[in-house]
Amino acid sequence: MEAYLDNSATTPVCAEAVQAMQQQLNHTWGNPSSLHRVGLMAEHLLNQSRAAVAAGLSCSPGEITFTSGGTEANNLAVFGTATARARQGRRIVTSSVEHSSIAESCAELVSRGYDVVYLDVDHTGRVREEDLAAAINSETILVSLMAVNNEVGTVQPIDAIRRFVRQAGAPALVHCDAVQAFGKLPIHPQQLGVDLLTVSSHKVHGPKGAGALYIRNGVKISPILYGGSQERRLRPGTESTTAITGFAAAVAATPDHTQSFNHVTALRDRLVAGLQRMPGVFINSPPDALPYLTNISVPGLPSEVMINFLTERNVHVSSGSACAKGAKSRVLQAMNLPDSHVTSALRISLSRLTKWEEIDALLYALAEAMATLLRR
Amino acid sequence: MEAYLDNSATTPVCAEAVQAMQQQLNHTWGNPSSLHRVGLMAEHLLNQSRAAVAAGLSCSPGEITFTSGGTEANNLAVFGTATARARQGRRIVTSSVEHSSIAESCAELVSRGYDVVYLDVDHTGRVREEDLAAAINSETILVSLMAVNNEVGTVQPIDAIRRFVRQAGAPALVHCDAVQAFGKLPIHPQQLGVDLLTVSSHKVHGPKGAGALYIRNGVKISPILYGGSQERRLRPGTESTTAITGFAAAVAATPDHTQSFNHVTALRDRLVAGLQRMPGVFINSPPDALPYLTNISVPGLPSEVMINFLTERNVHVSSGSACAKGAKSRVLQAMNLPDSHVTSALRISLSRLTKWEEIDALLYALAEAMATLLRR
Repeated sequence: MEAYLDNSATTPVCAEAVQAMQQQLNHTWGNPSSLHRVGLMAEHLLNQSRAAVAAGLSCSPGEITFTSGGTEANNLAVFGTATARARQGRRIVTSSVEHSSIAESCAELVSRGYDVVYLDVDHTGRVREEDLAAAINSETILVSLMAVNNEVGTVQPIDAIRRFVRQAGAPALVHCDAVQAFGKLPIHPQQLGVDLLTVSSHKVHGPKGAGALYIRNGVKISPILYGGSQERRLRPGTESTTAITGFAAAVAATPDHTQSFNHVTALRDRLVAGLQRMPGVFINSPPDALPYLTNISVPGLPSEVMINFLTERNVHVSSGSACAKGAKSRVLQAMNLPDSHVTSALRISLSRLTKWEEIDALLYALAEAMATLLRR
Repeated sequence: MEAYLDNSATTPVCAEAVQAMQQQLNHTWGNPSSLHRVGLMAEHLLNQSRAAVAAGLSCSPGEITFTSGGTEANNLAVFGTATARARQGRRIVTSSVEHSSIAESCAELVSRGYDVVYLDVDHTGRVREEDLAAAINSETILVSLMAVNNEVGTVQPIDAIRRFVRQAGAPALVHCDAVQAFGKLPIHPQQLGVDLLTVSSHKVHGPKGAGALYIRNGVKISPILYGGSQERRLRPGTESTTAITGFAAAVAATPDHTQSFNHVTALRDRLVAGLQRMPGVFINSPPDALPYLTNISVPGLPSEVMINFLTERNVHVSSGSACAKGAKSRVLQAMNLPDSHVTSALRISLSRLTKWEEIDALLYALAEAMATLLRR
């Protein structure tokens, strides 16, 4: 049996998505911009897909802009806002634990003369609301915070941002990277008070190659790519209709959040109970983290050694973000964890499709690893 | 029977690509950046795909950077060069008949203070070599020209550019948008003397959502997206492995150029012979255009009216670039065609899979359209 416990890196593609894509590839392969019937059929499917993703976010289809994935959507949010609002201010407020697509975009903006404030986090990985309030001033044009941290599962106080923006009289758009939250928590951009929100297909059992940026009705940002008139001129280029079709099918196939949440919470509780019986294993995720993500450390056993040991036993976990391949975790460092924890970190990430046996296989293999590797 | 004659907008996805994608979706859906076996299998497939696309361009795999499509690859070439070489000069030389992803990127560069020279074309749609030589000076950092025009099929003198760059002592990179040429003509970037070259999956019977920028070994350009370390940090974000797999399979399935070229030339000759028997039909493409593309006009019959009439009879053609949905053709205007030709233009574009009956269906429907619509 294979135990795939790296669902925050990517998820297996669900049968509904595979089937929808196969149908699109064989029968609806037209260019949605073409004026003939082959094109109109493709445009119709694209509209249906947009409506399905919008339904998953309780927003209107016109608020969905498809991109090639979460990284591009995050880049569009950051640069699109920075360019569109450059005259209103130069400050951007974010955190020190964002995904690399936000962190690197902001670093690029610093080199272009923007003032980026990276908020620290507490030992649970959470931004302090008072820090957030203090950082947002009347020059602030963007506040970007992730909903759920991709390495430890910490939930951030997204719904507090709008109030602080109002209090500061800031011309800021509020952006939320909801890649790790979408499909796991109910995400309603309007209720959260955000203007921009990023989601990604391949984290919700859709294919790689599609993502979306929610842009609240009436909000204007600048494009980052130039060309044709697709996606209301905000994202030119022939739409990636195969991946978009699969994305929409995966969103439509996502069951009730509560049901999945309860299943995954039960899995997580079994996992944690097992881990707590193993001396030398530390749990880095806070108790109130999203149950889909559990970050642990086994000081003395470097992450890569452990990953290799486990994958040879058909158990697949990661050391952190796949996008940061091999690099030391900024998130764990920001949480002030000792270096021995950072270098031995393992991220165990579940999905609604994870089975009990996969948890048991991990616990068994971990115990074996510690008995075998720590003894040396 | 459906006659699909809009292959320059997009092509039907070949069986080889569909099968390869289905395999990837079911069995190789891992994240290529993950360190465990599920990830390594995905990375292996990505490497194989890169090698297949490289083989189609007679270049090395390390020279291939995957993007979300031709538009993004063109943007990466233009902005990536402009940023990387900003200190060496500000001039960019291109033509007035490029795809919107080059035209709009260049327009954006003008607003950022770059000096963009848009070369005129002759009545066949071709850039004059003497104009090209005159425009390239010692401040020129980029020359970007398409290999084959996407509306009329005119072949541009790409292989002359390198010589003019050398003569001018220009610090210029040479970029070629080969989206309409790839799979139809042998495209060897090294023989053409170009540094950067764009290709797209969905024009060669692959899926939408993948393209590639060839970047000659040793050439450095800047990224346009920021984030993870994928694609040698030049194109961050989890790779669109489904579309890339299909792209590679389509490239690998592309038969010998000569064989397809001869088949399509015979189809084109039959088409042109038929058109020449219809009074009131003008052929806008030059006689030496790539046979895959034939642009015609029927003055008095607006393009949209004709497209609608034909598509109701299961014959599908376009008025020009799908990415310019409905807008008046810049290309035909640059060729100095009368307005009556521009507003009635039809683009008939073939592929290696086009059948004789499709040509006959078009000719029959065109004759019917002229008899029915022109009489009114």
